Amino acid sequence: MKICRISGALLDGAGLRRLRDFHWADPVIVPTGDSVPLDEALLIAPVTPGKIVAVGRNYADHAKELGNDVPAEPILFLKPPSALNSPGGAIDMPAVSSRVDFEGELAIVIGRRAKNVDPAGWREYVFGFTCANDVTARDLQKRDVQFTRGKGFDTFCPLGPWIETELDPSDLAIRTRVNGETRQDARTSMMIFSPAALVAFVSGIMTLEPGDVILTGTPAGVGPLAAGDTVEVEIEGIGTLRNYTRKG
Amino acid sequence: MKICRISGALLDGAGLRRLRDFHWADPVIVPTGDSVPLDEALLIAPVTPGKIVAVGRNYADHAKELGNDVPAEPILFLKPPSALNSPGGAIDMPAVSSRVDFEGELAIVIGRRAKNVDPAGWREYVFGFTCANDVTARDLQKRDVQFTRGKGFDTFCPLGPWIETELDPSDLAIRTRVNGETRQDARTSMMIFSPAALVAFVSGIMTLEPGDVILTGTPAGVGPLAAGDTVEVEIEGIGTLRNYTRKG
Repeated sequence: MKICRISGALLDGAGLRRLRDFHWADPVIVPTGDSVPLDEALLIAPVTPGKIVAVGRNYADHAKELGNDVPAEPILFLKPPSALNSPGGAIDMPAVSSRVDFEGELAIVIGRRAKNVDPAGWREYVFGFTCANDVTARDLQKRDVQFTRGKGFDTFCPLGPWIETELDPSDLAIRTRVNGETRQDARTSMMIFSPAALVAFVSGIMTLEPGDVILTGTPAGVGPLAAGDTVEVEIEGIGTLRNYTRKG
Repeated sequence: MKICRISGALLDGAGLRRLRDFHWADPVIVPTGDSVPLDEALLIAPVTPGKIVAVGRNYADHAKELGNDVPAEPILFLKPPSALNSPGGAIDMPAVSSRVDFEGELAIVIGRRAKNVDPAGWREYVFGFTCANDVTARDLQKRDVQFTRGKGFDTFCPLGPWIETELDPSDLAIRTRVNGETRQDARTSMMIFSPAALVAFVSGIMTLEPGDVILTGTPAGVGPLAAGDTVEVEIEGIGTLRNYTRKG
């Protein structure tokens, strides 16, 4: 048995075509002739971010459901890169928490080093978009006030299934299902701070590097997961990120 | 003019001896015969962490001076790797903040991948220790509640000047000076959660990788910096981390 990983592939119908010479900052996307059926491939997270910047309360209905005001400026937090999880991967539920929630989100993948970006020019710094699940130990998040522990456990940041590079993210359906039942059903147009505003705001604080990810916040409908659940985040124009939960 | 960086050097008296084959996880420290005088070297941060995990309110006197209770468990937050700064580097004071504080801290540098570490065995996962300045835009920290923005600006995490590998960190003098005047003067024995407890706690949440850093919290005496200030964090047995501030 020979096992390897490839650095990039282009989804082309139901096949994956391997890429040559893939670079984030100036993508030279040269697919080879080779094609692998998608259902024979084990996908990993489509990016390994140096940092994962996330935004709290970016949908008014979600701020309300947790009893919070709508913020005047984006509320930022960070998830550690060690929390990264792949499509199909297990979300390990830590014994120290009694409530682990799903949070379906649109993720922005940075393509070029970005500092003090003008909102009007934001798109040239963005490589593309993917789905994310900002898994959260709600009890620890509340207890700590700081979100770091509650949102920072290993496996708490599934990303994928792939990055869509050609997409207008301004008004996409975003849905989260648990065991097939729809729990979040919103549109990205309901964001308080748009992707353009977020790239500008975050890059005014910290330099964004190629491969960094911004999670744009979750809509209303968040709720707890139980061990053995299947959780899916589906975003129009991207696809479906599916994971399952297990006792950690 | 030829400019290069070297991957590691051993401080030996007043000279730096270049290292061959330096690896974090299983350090093979083979100094070459070559020596460069320390005062001719431009030091950079002694590590480029994949993540910088920090601890809030880990000295009782500091918790008190900001009007906070002493926490029952460590309060974690993350500084982005983009905030890394070098010994001698400028701390850029963002125009959006009207109060930028110094916070002198002992930093733990991880040497081996660490997950669910037993406090009794913590030391084998630690490569060594260095000085850190957890620079903080205090007004933004208070306004946001989440610490990410206030502590996440570029240049807000000076580390250095070097890593001391042979050190018992349990009772070291730690001092911060601004323009030569002592502003923080404490001992690491005053920590609420010891380095052993912190490595165990953090690694129970997120896998720590070689080169990751844990900032262990700041003692009492924090205060604002003005543009043009020189700020020094000195830790017994390590050395002095010196930086200056400028308008960002």
